Amino acid sequence: MEAQLFVKMALIAWEGQVKRAGTLFNTLTDEQLLLEVTPGGNRGIYLLGHLVAVNDALLPLLGLGERLHPELENAFITNPDKSGIIMPSIAELRQYWSEVHARLADRFQSMTPEQWFQRHNSMTDEDLQKEPHRNKLSVLLSRTSHIAYHLGQEVLVKKQIAVQN
Amino acid sequence: MEAQLFVKMALIAWEGQVKRAGTLFNTLTDEQLLLEVTPGGNRGIYLLGHLVAVNDALLPLLGLGERLHPELENAFITNPDKSGIIMPSIAELRQYWSEVHARLADRFQSMTPEQWFQRHNSMTDEDLQKEPHRNKLSVLLSRTSHIAYHLGQEVLVKKQIAVQN
Repeated sequence: MEAQLFVKMALIAWEGQVKRAGTLFNTLTDEQLLLEVTPGGNRGIYLLGHLVAVNDALLPLLGLGERLHPELENAFITNPDKSGIIMPSIAELRQYWSEVHARLADRFQSMTPEQWFQRHNSMTDEDLQKEPHRNKLSVLLSRTSHIAYHLGQEVLVKKQIAVQN
Repeated sequence: MEAQLFVKMALIAWEGQVKRAGTLFNTLTDEQLLLEVTPGGNRGIYLLGHLVAVNDALLPLLGLGERLHPELENAFITNPDKSGIIMPSIAELRQYWSEVHARLADRFQSMTPEQWFQRHNSMTDEDLQKEPHRNKLSVLLSRTSHIAYHLGQEVLVKKQIAVQN
């Protein structure tokens, strides 16, 4: 019962950030997603692709299947923005955002509380025995703050648009 | 046992963000904390004061005592940056950051896992019965992402400094 409650709390926190970020990306036009969040900084298209790629990688990390879009890794994880690597269109990235988060929601739904407390796939059984707090649910907590971190950046584009108008 | 593990996971996530943000504020000079994170956006001094004020308010919200710096609310929570309200000096805010997070760490240390699952002080007993996931620990999860959100913004100042040099 308690484990179930923690998992619910962590999932609510996760879904809250996914929803806030998804809403923000939806309210910005393709043109606005090509603006840098700060002079010299990342563009919205990069932050969108980066969050899709990092969250997509939760699937194998949590033992929930293969990534839907492994091809995003090079442009959005391995390399920084404006590295010259060809990116999918913004329309495609918007669709991937929906797909990946729908797949994750579906897979999370099917996990038992006990599974969340198992080790994730970058750890050995010995690691987990020594550090039981480094489990699947701790990865989710960390990725939740990761969304918030980049959401805080992308929201600045709205400030810029307001200043320009 | 499980409750203890989950509290530990949530505290590790919290401390991680507090540490990352504290390190960033420490590496920025007073002058750099007066830069806007994006044209027209908040300055570092505001984000520093805002995070101190919001996190200080965890003390009464979680039933852990009075705020150390209630005087920050007007300049850093109720009002936006550059509203003309007098702020403490950056040196004072840096000191408050340390004080507030040391006090929180100390109080968190003394809480039992059970206490974390009690209602926070903006809720009634009936609220908690209906929604047991809205407890003290859920507030901590939410404040952890709140730090990450503004950390993501303040870190952009480093990008600006790099562009200027």
